[in-house]
Amino acid sequence: MSVTAARGFVASGVACGIKPSGDLDLALVAVDPPRPVSAAATFTTNGAAAAPVRVSESHLRATKGRAAAVVLNSGCANAATGAPGLAIAETMCALTASALGVEPRDVLVCSTGLIGIPLPQAPVAAGIPLLVGQRSPAAESAALAALAIMTTDRRPKTTVVEGDGFTVGAMAKGAAMLAPNMATMLAVLTTDATIIPTHLRSCLRSAVSASFNELTIDGCTSTNDTVIVLSSGLGREVAPEELTVLLTAACQDLAQQMALDAEGATKVVRIEVLGARTGGEARRAASKVAQSQLVQCSLHGGDPYWGRVVSELGSAGIGFESDLVEVAYGSHIVCRGGVAAEHDALALALYMGSPEIDIRCELGLGDGAAVVVTTDLSAAYIDENMRTS
Amino acid sequence: MSVTAARGFVASGVACGIKPSGDLDLALVAVDPPRPVSAAATFTTNGAAAAPVRVSESHLRATKGRAAAVVLNSGCANAATGAPGLAIAETMCALTASALGVEPRDVLVCSTGLIGIPLPQAPVAAGIPLLVGQRSPAAESAALAALAIMTTDRRPKTTVVEGDGFTVGAMAKGAAMLAPNMATMLAVLTTDATIIPTHLRSCLRSAVSASFNELTIDGCTSTNDTVIVLSSGLGREVAPEELTVLLTAACQDLAQQMALDAEGATKVVRIEVLGARTGGEARRAASKVAQSQLVQCSLHGGDPYWGRVVSELGSAGIGFESDLVEVAYGSHIVCRGGVAAEHDALALALYMGSPEIDIRCELGLGDGAAVVVTTDLSAAYIDENMRTS
Repeated sequence: MSVTAARGFVASGVACGIKPSGDLDLALVAVDPPRPVSAAATFTTNGAAAAPVRVSESHLRATKGRAAAVVLNSGCANAATGAPGLAIAETMCALTASALGVEPRDVLVCSTGLIGIPLPQAPVAAGIPLLVGQRSPAAESAALAALAIMTTDRRPKTTVVEGDGFTVGAMAKGAAMLAPNMATMLAVLTTDATIIPTHLRSCLRSAVSASFNELTIDGCTSTNDTVIVLSSGLGREVAPEELTVLLTAACQDLAQQMALDAEGATKVVRIEVLGARTGGEARRAASKVAQSQLVQCSLHGGDPYWGRVVSELGSAGIGFESDLVEVAYGSHIVCRGGVAAEHDALALALYMGSPEIDIRCELGLGDGAAVVVTTDLSAAYIDENMRTS
Repeated sequence: MSVTAARGFVASGVACGIKPSGDLDLALVAVDPPRPVSAAATFTTNGAAAAPVRVSESHLRATKGRAAAVVLNSGCANAATGAPGLAIAETMCALTASALGVEPRDVLVCSTGLIGIPLPQAPVAAGIPLLVGQRSPAAESAALAALAIMTTDRRPKTTVVEGDGFTVGAMAKGAAMLAPNMATMLAVLTTDATIIPTHLRSCLRSAVSASFNELTIDGCTSTNDTVIVLSSGLGREVAPEELTVLLTAACQDLAQQMALDAEGATKVVRIEVLGARTGGEARRAASKVAQSQLVQCSLHGGDPYWGRVVSELGSAGIGFESDLVEVAYGSHIVCRGGVAAEHDALALALYMGSPEIDIRCELGLGDGAAVVVTTDLSAAYIDENMRTS
């Protein structure tokens, strides 16, 4: 069901011809019946933000946090495309709005794919009426929408979380360039909860901060990252805290699916830093370890080479005393007081072979704690990314 | 000749048994006849700095910038080894000093290899007298010293630069974990110029800043990075500016050799950022592009995917206006005004196949400029780094 699980939403996905392969490349999530409802979004912090990001930001500002639909395309990021790119993003909104009978500013737009390539207007213009015509609340329609936003994803990513009298459904895409402050990732969440736009915005911020922003694969922040939530208001009124819990659960589920689907990854690795002077320093240290190519290579080889972990902690630019450091892989403490600790090497080797690895780093300086999720780095990542065509 | 090219220096290299392979693993560079002379060093900024770094720093502080010799080992970094590690590093200095007839504090020490493994004292203690006994100014001895500091290096790295009446010779090792603020790299430079320690220190800082600190392969900063210079004072007195020029040339030559030898690298890539608001911002942007796994993958595939370059510039946390950006690969401008620029695709494809690539990014905002050198990222890097044993 994903984005149509909550009451009051329809979806669709079509192949309009942006992708030369003929795969699905245009998706819609809309409120049904069509009308602007509470909406919120978080966008990439990249200064080279793509045209659809700029357009969606300005629409949400103009409506003070309301929207009736999201139109999304894959196969082209419409980034680094200048004024023509902005015009096409606006056209996508206008065509969708016209077919739905709402205002152009009530439509948000997302794109994902290659940067620097113009988005062809003809297939999009022909595809949107078809897309809007096929919208439905059926599970199949939601599934087509989730497929239509995929790029290098191997699997579509969807989730549904049930609350007490309200529901959150969601779809997402993303398989590389996953970094703090998001990544080449798009997510659309829907809920039937009733909530005002300002509350919805703070719920989404909390949820994203505890999920997508804790995921880092390669330290790259994309030009197109967008997470959007729409609330149809067909369900009961909810407190922001209630909705935050469900949105967070949905976002964490999607983030985990992205990590498992990361390009070439064979392991999902959770890096926890404890005992830092501040939470911010813990987060910086965990990110430094998570983004280390050398640590990621060791993880790929199943090698518990904790020296690289300590080296990254030491160069993270945080409060650090090497004599206080403890490092553990799962329950196996391999470094204590900054030096090698005796451990069961055989049991550790078995642990390192598992698909999910926990690395815990205790700095011994304070109460700052943070978790970052990453993956290993494999030759398949390079194969996938060395040619775009 | 390398480190014995300048008058007043001897060197040697032996296999003492740290490396199970039996390869050379202990090296000496010493002033001849033995006596403390002007010396300076730059060390890693890693908070988990290895024992030899701490010992060398304290010796140089105690002597106010004088030293008679450097003893170096490969096969073990003596990092994350606690108090016993410090004791062994001090012992290495004491044994070398005793054999040379100088004070322990007149000897500096460097180690490189795996982190977190205790450095075995017996082979080092047996090897140092042998090492000191074999010291000579011969080219063969300098060559053995350069071989004895290698770890994953495929080739020894040496250089000699001749000045007007004085000479700089040098050796180095380093093939990965090359990052700003240095890397798992060691370098020893020697000169016969006459100069006081404070001037020598500022010459070295300038040279390192314009060479090793402009090299970044994987963004990792090692626990052991050290660059040391000794001046025998057998040549004429030099102005700091004169010596800076030669030291910079020597360090740039060594940095280039390291990039060419980087693990798995097939291309050396020079990334120049111009038109940033400040030099610092230019440097941050160039580093962000250089350390991008996605950019490095594209370079490996010979793919001029400039969208990734613009995305990294935009997420570098600097002043950035996408409409002003220009990106060129060599003489081929591929992006102008933030959008795709027409170019000769065939000529560009040929250029991308060459072993040395220049990427120039013009931000159009000010006078800030910086250059960072990096390499592509290949599956061989991962193969090399996925298992330490």
